[in-house]
Amino acid sequence: MNDVRIALGLRIKQLRNEEGISQEELANRAELDRTYITSVEKGRRNISILNIEKICNALNVSLKQFFDSEEFDV
Amino acid sequence: MNDVRIALGLRIKQLRNEEGISQEELANRAELDRTYITSVEKGRRNISILNIEKICNALNVSLKQFFDSEEFDV
Repeated sequence: MNDVRIALGLRIKQLRNEEGISQEELANRAELDRTYITSVEKGRRNISILNIEKICNALNVSLKQFFDSEEFDV
Repeated sequence: MNDVRIALGLRIKQLRNEEGISQEELANRAELDRTYITSVEKGRRNISILNIEKICNALNVSLKQFFDSEEFDV
């Protein structure tokens, strides 16, 4: 994976689908805008650590679990 | 660890010490400002994923390895 923003967006989408929730539900849980979640999942945002943490909390995973994936081991 | 910015700063400092390099050398390798590295290590910055990646590259660890630590598993 060349761009970490793309890898991060795909990882969020994957975990959101595993959680069985919509972008809107994720946005509500994380107290972020739905359009922001959309652009993050598309890899268009240089997201900050505090927002990554909010999204992890909303997805019920720790930061360690979030980054425990092959695409982040390069 | 309450604040992820503090945890992240301490983790960078830990890995930098393991690598045996100064803040200035880390800054040079990551192409970031030395004063920025100082404030990140103190937990004062809401650092973005692209800068986390730059610092990981400079410390010779993957993002997965960076977050593979107890303080990020909460």
